[in-house]
Amino acid sequence: MLAAAAAVPLAVAATGAAPAVRVNGPRLETTLEQLSTFGRPPGTGFEGGVNRTAYSDADIAGRAYVMGLMRDAGLNPVIDPAGNIIGRRAGTKSGLKPIIIGSHIDSVRAGGNFDGDLGSMGALEVLRTLDDHGLKTRHPVEMAIWSNEEGGTCGSTAFAGKTAPGALDNTYYGITLRDGLKRIGGDPDRLAEAARAPGSIHTYLELHIEQGGILAKAGIPIGVVDGIVAIDRYDVEIKGFANHAGTTPMAGRHNALIAASQLVLAVDTVVKTEPGRQVGTVGQLAVFPNAPNVIPGRVTLTVELRDLSEAKVAALGQAVQARAREIATATGTEIVFHPTEQVRAALANPAVQAKIEAAAKQLGLAYMHLPSGAGHDAQLLAFLGPMGMIFVPSVAGISHSPKELTAWSDCANGANVLLQTLLAVDAG
Amino acid sequence: MLAAAAAVPLAVAATGAAPAVRVNGPRLETTLEQLSTFGRPPGTGFEGGVNRTAYSDADIAGRAYVMGLMRDAGLNPVIDPAGNIIGRRAGTKSGLKPIIIGSHIDSVRAGGNFDGDLGSMGALEVLRTLDDHGLKTRHPVEMAIWSNEEGGTCGSTAFAGKTAPGALDNTYYGITLRDGLKRIGGDPDRLAEAARAPGSIHTYLELHIEQGGILAKAGIPIGVVDGIVAIDRYDVEIKGFANHAGTTPMAGRHNALIAASQLVLAVDTVVKTEPGRQVGTVGQLAVFPNAPNVIPGRVTLTVELRDLSEAKVAALGQAVQARAREIATATGTEIVFHPTEQVRAALANPAVQAKIEAAAKQLGLAYMHLPSGAGHDAQLLAFLGPMGMIFVPSVAGISHSPKELTAWSDCANGANVLLQTLLAVDAG
Repeated sequence: MLAAAAAVPLAVAATGAAPAVRVNGPRLETTLEQLSTFGRPPGTGFEGGVNRTAYSDADIAGRAYVMGLMRDAGLNPVIDPAGNIIGRRAGTKSGLKPIIIGSHIDSVRAGGNFDGDLGSMGALEVLRTLDDHGLKTRHPVEMAIWSNEEGGTCGSTAFAGKTAPGALDNTYYGITLRDGLKRIGGDPDRLAEAARAPGSIHTYLELHIEQGGILAKAGIPIGVVDGIVAIDRYDVEIKGFANHAGTTPMAGRHNALIAASQLVLAVDTVVKTEPGRQVGTVGQLAVFPNAPNVIPGRVTLTVELRDLSEAKVAALGQAVQARAREIATATGTEIVFHPTEQVRAALANPAVQAKIEAAAKQLGLAYMHLPSGAGHDAQLLAFLGPMGMIFVPSVAGISHSPKELTAWSDCANGANVLLQTLLAVDAG
Repeated sequence: MLAAAAAVPLAVAATGAAPAVRVNGPRLETTLEQLSTFGRPPGTGFEGGVNRTAYSDADIAGRAYVMGLMRDAGLNPVIDPAGNIIGRRAGTKSGLKPIIIGSHIDSVRAGGNFDGDLGSMGALEVLRTLDDHGLKTRHPVEMAIWSNEEGGTCGSTAFAGKTAPGALDNTYYGITLRDGLKRIGGDPDRLAEAARAPGSIHTYLELHIEQGGILAKAGIPIGVVDGIVAIDRYDVEIKGFANHAGTTPMAGRHNALIAASQLVLAVDTVVKTEPGRQVGTVGQLAVFPNAPNVIPGRVTLTVELRDLSEAKVAALGQAVQARAREIATATGTEIVFHPTEQVRAALANPAVQAKIEAAAKQLGLAYMHLPSGAGHDAQLLAFLGPMGMIFVPSVAGISHSPKELTAWSDCANGANVLLQTLLAVDAG
């Protein structure tokens, strides 16, 4: 790390002039390609994606690789009790709260090379770039690789002090989170010590691929995330009456699948009727007794509703349940909704969003605002301080798949926006 | 068996005067109650129903009981190579084809005490009544207990010479039909010898409970069956595109479950739109990958259509497939129909139907015509000669259940109609 400069470049960024400092795109590409070899399916190349599920040998090897890079960058990485890898770059002014940047490197089974990896290696590239240019920040900057994001944002949840009692006893691909944590160098018995206090961080920034194909479809390179959506999930049970499909007249039936089909379509209609980006899905459905010659007597299904507005999610749930009551009456069935899961929305900080916008403008990159329909570590960090997320396009919106693909130019664009936003946040 | 009379009572029946000969209702009740003990679930009574699946110990014991009753009635029962129990009561005129009456005594798992049993014990009661009154028939009368009706009308299918190649290798509750046949005294190696030639029987008559609740709802004691419906079955596969339920906008989805729901409702609408007794059912449906947070990428389901008219069943299938093409276009999915099973309709003989009507009138019993939506041994016997079926009410249309219930008075009414129809058929 070179000595030098100070807060000066921030003023440049704020004026709207094109910033002189840019990340090293080819280096970011190389780092991502190297990371992709940890968990790569045998006989494939980069396009084969990765199996790097948390706590696996591939995860452990990938984490060791990344810690090596962080050590080389002078970040002195440590593994906290929650298995998060935390590095630190000192700031010039003492007593300031840290800015945290980062993401995760664990993947889903048969995942891709950008989900999490881009935000992780992008954060490293940003800090390397600061070093290349001898730039210091006023605030300390911490770089975080959150543990087991895909299995339920486990590391960032502990960092936010939100781990549920008994959560360590849950299993993930055959291993308890407790044993998994031990495998990756965490300490389940001291998990509470991983938690930071609300208000203890200056800002959290995360770069990530956009998993819905909205940016790719619009041809816009930068997404300014408004927040991470709220989710309401329900288990629904529909009780009709199973009967002989040959002998029971159409008029005398209490067909649970007719009611279920109407409900599936009602969820779709209710969600689509009002403007906005809300989504609603029946993803799971089972029929009983499920025989070709028996009228379905019972159906179970799930309803999931998401929007940035918790009030809207709740209102959609009420509207769907009102339709369900009408359907039950019309079909002679009983329909019961059991709320199963409620995820609070995590709004991105407006001032941080403005800085992301400004960074994109300075870089000459078109941008648009959008919510994140998927969950991210950022939603946990929002409990601790202002949060912002930068999205870049993923081709055709494909993610959680070896086919996940983001153009290298888009990766560099995203990292440049992260860099400039970091500098602006540091100055502001 | 007493000597005596002859064809005389038939003339009485034909005049419309109330017939003097009636079955012994209490004896029929007693016989059905005794049969119900074979396969009765431990700790229950008559209302506990029966587990008397074909080839089980209970089936074997029940068959031995019934053969004993048939022997006592002078019917000299034998087990044919297909496991059918066939008894014979001689006629007065040589060279005439036999009239066959009967049904089955095997049950579904957790079945009731009337499905099959009533037609079997009703046939015996009719022959006992003829003996009681010293009545002879011109034609020989055979009484048949068809083997394994519930597992696919196996015995009557062999009797009609329609057993499919390889069918004996199929399993039923863990035993091959071949081994099952051996257990009940059949001879799988000589199965073909069980077959009778088309045209070799004078008439087949079967008394059975009506399993759709139509008679019970209408309060009508006798059903004159028009025939046994044709069935067309399809396996349907709907291919959409699985995607993240949080990030994928509503407009960009190819949701296979939305298409499936529309198709389920289309089957219902198409079948209900035209007048008639046709039925259509989606009884089986599976969703893939079937997770609350994933848009369904694939759905498989079954479509089953039934009506007495094969042409109508085919036309309904075409109409459903036409709607499926529209749904596929509208939802951005692919929908493929695979025909899997086609059961031909078996029409009851009009002259036999007229004799059933006349018998009901003579007995002062209201009747109505209706199709059988369920399959029966009678549909196989229709390959061999004129066929007729008599239905009696089953409370609330419940069948294939311990709750299956037919009033004893309805049982006696049905047996009396069978008796008078037999006499009329014998005379005609």
